[in-house]
Amino acid sequence: MKHLALATLAAATLFTALPAAAQFQKPEDAIKYRRSALFVMGQHFGRIGAMAQGKVPFDAAAAAANADVVASMAKLPWAGFGPGTDSGDTNALPEVWLETEKFKGGQQKMQEELAKLATAAKSGNLDQLKAAFGDAGKTCKGCHEHFKKK
Amino acid sequence: MKHLALATLAAATLFTALPAAAQFQKPEDAIKYRRSALFVMGQHFGRIGAMAQGKVPFDAAAAAANADVVASMAKLPWAGFGPGTDSGDTNALPEVWLETEKFKGGQQKMQEELAKLATAAKSGNLDQLKAAFGDAGKTCKGCHEHFKKK
Repeated sequence: MKHLALATLAAATLFTALPAAAQFQKPEDAIKYRRSALFVMGQHFGRIGAMAQGKVPFDAAAAAANADVVASMAKLPWAGFGPGTDSGDTNALPEVWLETEKFKGGQQKMQEELAKLATAAKSGNLDQLKAAFGDAGKTCKGCHEHFKKK
Repeated sequence: MKHLALATLAAATLFTALPAAAQFQKPEDAIKYRRSALFVMGQHFGRIGAMAQGKVPFDAAAAAANADVVASMAKLPWAGFGPGTDSGDTNALPEVWLETEKFKGGQQKMQEELAKLATAAKSGNLDQLKAAFGDAGKTCKGCHEHFKKK
């Protein structure tokens, strides 16, 4: 258990030291970066969802591995929402740049819930996984409804 | 140092438990997934390169954080190269599916070099970083030349 707890901590804190102002050569790169990171996360999150929703058999090791990827990568996309990246190939609404505190709060809440999901996934208990997946999903949905085009 | 070594280990091994056969709903998702993961990695790798090449000032903490992202994510793209994902929006050459052992060897070598890069980045020594970046870059280039369209 000690090793598992340590691994969870590592997963949740691994990418925290990244500088806030990321170095994108052009706005298109920032947009592609955030979309790419969110897509990769979504794929892994979806695999946990399939288990939580009983669409595929529960595989505790796979759930834990996928949750680690999601929790670690949850730190990444936000650097791609810098100034000047509000137009182009994006579904982000102007609210991202108009309500920055709310947007940051959503990022933070989502990362907290995904860290909890990673811990729940490591418990090997499907009910815990289902509950944590539901909570994490709500944070995704809450932000998408407010900050993302339909 | 103990904590740093532990963090490096965690970074290098975090995503290893992912099942080989990832669950993509359709081939396009697998292609988008691998391209997305490689793009995110490329962005972070490029930031280390900018320091290694003297284009931006050396920032040891940023180098280490970027190298952790690259080393962790280096496990991900390969699951997206499954059967039936050889056509569509991809620059992958048929050799990926014809020379599977060589392709796997390239993945392995690249992951080893990126784990070394993460360790070198944590040393805080620019010369070590430069050397490890050069070695890692060769493994990227070697595979791209053989397996990726020009």
